[in-house]
Amino acid sequence: MRTLSLAVMMAVSPFAFAAEGMWTLDNLPLDTMKQAYGFDPNAKWLDHAMKGAVRLAGGCSGSFVSKEGLVLTNHHCVIGCVQDLSSKQHDYVNNGFIAGNRGEEKQCPGMEINRLESTTDVTERVQKATAGLSGKAYNDAKKAEQSKIEAECAGKQSATLRCDVVELYQGGVQHLYKYSRFQDVRLAFAPEYDAGFFGGDPDNFNFPRYNLDMSLLRVYQDGKPVKVKNFFPINPAGAAEGELVMTLGHPGSTQRLLTVSQLETQRDAMLPWRLMLAHEFRGLLLQYSNQGEEQARIAQTDLVSVENGIKARTGMFQALLAPEVMQDKRDAENALKAWVAEDEQRRQRYGNPWADIDAAQKTMRDLYMDYVMLEGGLGFQSQHLGWAETLVRGAAERAKPDGERLREFAEARMPAVRAGLLAETPVYPDYELMRLTWSLAKVREKLGVDHPFVRQLLGKDSPEQVAKRIVEGSQLGDVKLRESLWEGGAKAVDASSDPAIVLARLIDQQARQIRQRYETEVEAVEKRGAEQLAAARFALKGTSVYPDATFSLRLSHGVIRGWEEKGEAVPPFTTFEGLYARATDFDPFKLAPSWVSAKSKLDMNTKFNQVSTNDIIGGNSGSPLINAKGEVVGLVFDGNIRSLGGAYFFDEAVNRTVSVHSAAIQAALDKVYAAKHLSKELFGK
Amino acid sequence: MRTLSLAVMMAVSPFAFAAEGMWTLDNLPLDTMKQAYGFDPNAKWLDHAMKGAVRLAGGCSGSFVSKEGLVLTNHHCVIGCVQDLSSKQHDYVNNGFIAGNRGEEKQCPGMEINRLESTTDVTERVQKATAGLSGKAYNDAKKAEQSKIEAECAGKQSATLRCDVVELYQGGVQHLYKYSRFQDVRLAFAPEYDAGFFGGDPDNFNFPRYNLDMSLLRVYQDGKPVKVKNFFPINPAGAAEGELVMTLGHPGSTQRLLTVSQLETQRDAMLPWRLMLAHEFRGLLLQYSNQGEEQARIAQTDLVSVENGIKARTGMFQALLAPEVMQDKRDAENALKAWVAEDEQRRQRYGNPWADIDAAQKTMRDLYMDYVMLEGGLGFQSQHLGWAETLVRGAAERAKPDGERLREFAEARMPAVRAGLLAETPVYPDYELMRLTWSLAKVREKLGVDHPFVRQLLGKDSPEQVAKRIVEGSQLGDVKLRESLWEGGAKAVDASSDPAIVLARLIDQQARQIRQRYETEVEAVEKRGAEQLAAARFALKGTSVYPDATFSLRLSHGVIRGWEEKGEAVPPFTTFEGLYARATDFDPFKLAPSWVSAKSKLDMNTKFNQVSTNDIIGGNSGSPLINAKGEVVGLVFDGNIRSLGGAYFFDEAVNRTVSVHSAAIQAALDKVYAAKHLSKELFGK
Repeated sequence: MRTLSLAVMMAVSPFAFAAEGMWTLDNLPLDTMKQAYGFDPNAKWLDHAMKGAVRLAGGCSGSFVSKEGLVLTNHHCVIGCVQDLSSKQHDYVNNGFIAGNRGEEKQCPGMEINRLESTTDVTERVQKATAGLSGKAYNDAKKAEQSKIEAECAGKQSATLRCDVVELYQGGVQHLYKYSRFQDVRLAFAPEYDAGFFGGDPDNFNFPRYNLDMSLLRVYQDGKPVKVKNFFPINPAGAAEGELVMTLGHPGSTQRLLTVSQLETQRDAMLPWRLMLAHEFRGLLLQYSNQGEEQARIAQTDLVSVENGIKARTGMFQALLAPEVMQDKRDAENALKAWVAEDEQRRQRYGNPWADIDAAQKTMRDLYMDYVMLEGGLGFQSQHLGWAETLVRGAAERAKPDGERLREFAEARMPAVRAGLLAETPVYPDYELMRLTWSLAKVREKLGVDHPFVRQLLGKDSPEQVAKRIVEGSQLGDVKLRESLWEGGAKAVDASSDPAIVLARLIDQQARQIRQRYETEVEAVEKRGAEQLAAARFALKGTSVYPDATFSLRLSHGVIRGWEEKGEAVPPFTTFEGLYARATDFDPFKLAPSWVSAKSKLDMNTKFNQVSTNDIIGGNSGSPLINAKGEVVGLVFDGNIRSLGGAYFFDEAVNRTVSVHSAAIQAALDKVYAAKHLSKELFGK
Repeated sequence: MRTLSLAVMMAVSPFAFAAEGMWTLDNLPLDTMKQAYGFDPNAKWLDHAMKGAVRLAGGCSGSFVSKEGLVLTNHHCVIGCVQDLSSKQHDYVNNGFIAGNRGEEKQCPGMEINRLESTTDVTERVQKATAGLSGKAYNDAKKAEQSKIEAECAGKQSATLRCDVVELYQGGVQHLYKYSRFQDVRLAFAPEYDAGFFGGDPDNFNFPRYNLDMSLLRVYQDGKPVKVKNFFPINPAGAAEGELVMTLGHPGSTQRLLTVSQLETQRDAMLPWRLMLAHEFRGLLLQYSNQGEEQARIAQTDLVSVENGIKARTGMFQALLAPEVMQDKRDAENALKAWVAEDEQRRQRYGNPWADIDAAQKTMRDLYMDYVMLEGGLGFQSQHLGWAETLVRGAAERAKPDGERLREFAEARMPAVRAGLLAETPVYPDYELMRLTWSLAKVREKLGVDHPFVRQLLGKDSPEQVAKRIVEGSQLGDVKLRESLWEGGAKAVDASSDPAIVLARLIDQQARQIRQRYETEVEAVEKRGAEQLAAARFALKGTSVYPDATFSLRLSHGVIRGWEEKGEAVPPFTTFEGLYARATDFDPFKLAPSWVSAKSKLDMNTKFNQVSTNDIIGGNSGSPLINAKGEVVGLVFDGNIRSLGGAYFFDEAVNRTVSVHSAAIQAALDKVYAAKHLSKELFGK
């Protein structure tokens, strides 16, 4: 059977060769790296790497770059904060923000930064708790055990310690991740929108590129900049073509281990429909932005986010439409099936998880749209309803023992939930009215006019009337009220007649039903099956397999390298010269005034953006690109258009990571923004 | 081989049983009809039916319902006219329009009505002209011959006679259709928008339904109402459940004879992407409408059209995603392939058209987006550019001999082209700016920032700048200027520096290239292949097959009947009572004031809408639903949601035609609108 087994080794993806893989630091492909690059990091290097990298809890990566707590990340990772800090008087979005000194650094509302301190394998403990269970019992037991582990870990330190059980290999391995939690994060530098998102949506996921997608945050503790031992100095020399570069970041989610039936669900029942909704919302936001400068400013963050999501999902959808991709997946699945089938013991041990997962897909298809609309929140796009739902659900969940709660309300999650709820974020009634009206109309459209829940939701009113009731009537914009309701718990929330709370109660009831059905009939089946598949894969290949992304720390190795597109070589670097050539007088190709006036001071040959073969995905934004010495040679902010299929597979020939070159970071701070104090802190001069 | 042949008979769709089929009047399934309903129409009946039915050249059906030229059609078929006739002073869209007498009937700008007078088989002539040719040569020869046939037919009477060569059976059969052409069409009655589109987009394609989607036009000739001999009187008694009812209408397009590879192209490369564009445009229009009542009025027609298209294409896309549908198609294809393969003579005669068609799909996929954006006009949504393109292309084409022109500029088409160009339609600069800016941005997005054509199109400008140049700078809103440029031909158009003309020249060049590639590498191959497939099907089954829809006259037979949805029976009729129960105070469920005040005068049991098993598709809107006596018992305006898969297959269990019951038509004219003169003309009292 050696021939077949070899075939399996080749066919069962994901299989680590070359730059493929988002590796956990405790299971790096050290042999491959040594062989390919002569690089063999020791434990100290790895510990330093782990602690130099940070995670922005909202969904990005970053790294410490000074001993006084400066964090380098992307402009697009802090744009929400920049917008929250802006007002009609101070348009930091379009004018940029440079704190002249530490006193001028401004706190980002609700922002949380995590630094990983340690990881522990808790697989055995979780598997013990779920042994022999299935369906709801399996789910409940697993979640209870995970919450228990997290609570034990955080203890009474949950304000400064964050503990997450991370399900690796689609649940095949469970690790406890222990983070330092920082909730006082201040903005030190953000370029103007025209510089930080030069090229806008048209250039997004494209290369050649000319984008200063960078920002600097500073982490505070007890009112002072945090002192950090582990940080990555920025080396403006960068890395040469072909040189080893590594990303350290938090890729959000990949689906490389899904079965063929799960991929078909994504292709036929999820991605296109989600994309259509996103496109419609985009149109709405585009025209809202057309109405005036203030409206454009208000809608900017959501618009960028929805456009980014559209490009990303489009790439994923297109990847799944390619018949050869699905065929590769099918071949790999059949090979693993054959390996299991060829041996009685294997059949006994691994069973037929594919059949169980396949059967759950019908329910998934039926549930998907209801789930994303009601439980996923797409149907209730409203700050008031968001707060109200946190209050209503939070009150009910906090009344339960920790292990029985919905996971996002586990004790260990409370600080982040509370911080999000009580963040001082502005409310724009006109904008809220628009997006809530629209999203309620989508609930009616997707569920149908005659759906019992829709009748309850709207009664004899229109979506607009219901939205008006919330936007005009709710008092939840008052942070003190939110705080008192949160502190008051179930009693206070139950007594509230705030229209947003009243509606949230109705929604919560319906959403919980759908979630329950999803978790019991789909999620539990898929997770159970994934555990079995993971076990089979481990038996066949050991840990030469990397886990799907889970928004936890990963290292990807690669080299600076261009690629070939339609027969043309795309070189790996761009320069400032290209920026000035591409510029027009109009967004999104307009130069910020600072760049217009700095032109004579800049060396036009300065490297600006670059591509490398690292394997990344959304969530990696803000990752440092470091060399073997642990120096920052780039700041990851994007993948090329061909990287979007990376959700499902990695193709080293064309999949590229896009980063800001370290030379551009220095030149920008020095010459364009004259941010001398930051420059001094980072570059020592 | 009898067994296989029988299997083929069952498997090769479309196959006529029960209500399936959109039949040409010269090839009705008379045996089936006689057997099923005891109805056996004679030649006189058929001639009467042909001449009582009319086509609205813009894309709808209708029928003469009085001897003085009244045409019954849908409200949604005349909404464009109603909007064009409206102004800030007269909001006929929302208030409805009732001409108090014939003098008050208002001409619909650019509207053309066609009445079929005869059809002739010209297959042999076209096939002779194309014998032995392929690719461009095949296309050119076919189009030249078709144009020649049309020109010979219309002669110098093209102002009153329209001659179209219709390609039936995907090109397997060519018929010459000779129509009377009426270009003076006036609006006699249209209900308020809230009545004519009650339930709006949420209820569209749904049933139970409560919608007065009707209007009355009057056809004029030489300034007087045309006298017609063949018309269908309206019988308010309607038809009973289970009774034979027939539609006579102009279904636009079905794809029931496509190969599996063509269907896959629709599913993977066309429908989802087109739907995403439509969704985004919908969002844009929704927010434009939110800006005020006037904006809502301006955007209304486009919004309804885009929403209707979204529902229709969604149904089509969903139909193709169902694995069993594709499997049925695959089985049918394999059966026909097997029938051809089993005999040497057949192999010789029919070849392997599937392989040719399959090979053309790659090009189709590559071309599709460029084609719809540049040649299909989605990238240039602008009245000015539309006029300019007609002028630029029209001038170039008219300079050529008739047979060498693009088909839509053939001599026979000229009156309609000219009427469209010179119609007095209002221009709303703000609206034009919005949609042109957006669509130019989509060109940039779909083709890419660095596409040579995009660089030419935008230069260093933004889409908005380019749009402004057109909307603010073009003088083509002046109908006199358009007329002089049209009359002046190539010389006048070439000399023009109107910015819309200048841009249209650039677009025309690029669009022609893409069209040429499509026609040569895709269309010619597909048509050639379809001819061979049609020949094989005819050989196997004779004319028991009906052709795909081609926006030419078809009869569909069926019966009044409900269906079962998720185990619940849906009854075939609704009543006025249901309307009042469904009404709310808000659009799209708001009652028009006339219906509020008429309530006490109406019999609540009056039948309002109904469903029947007829096989229809978009383009059938406005078709009369007639009984065996040739009386109108309903006015077709929609299909149920399950009818949307009808583009690809007919499922009699669930596919239903939705119509306004004739009793509701009478009650509305009599009691709600007190349109006494129309009531008298239609019902004689």
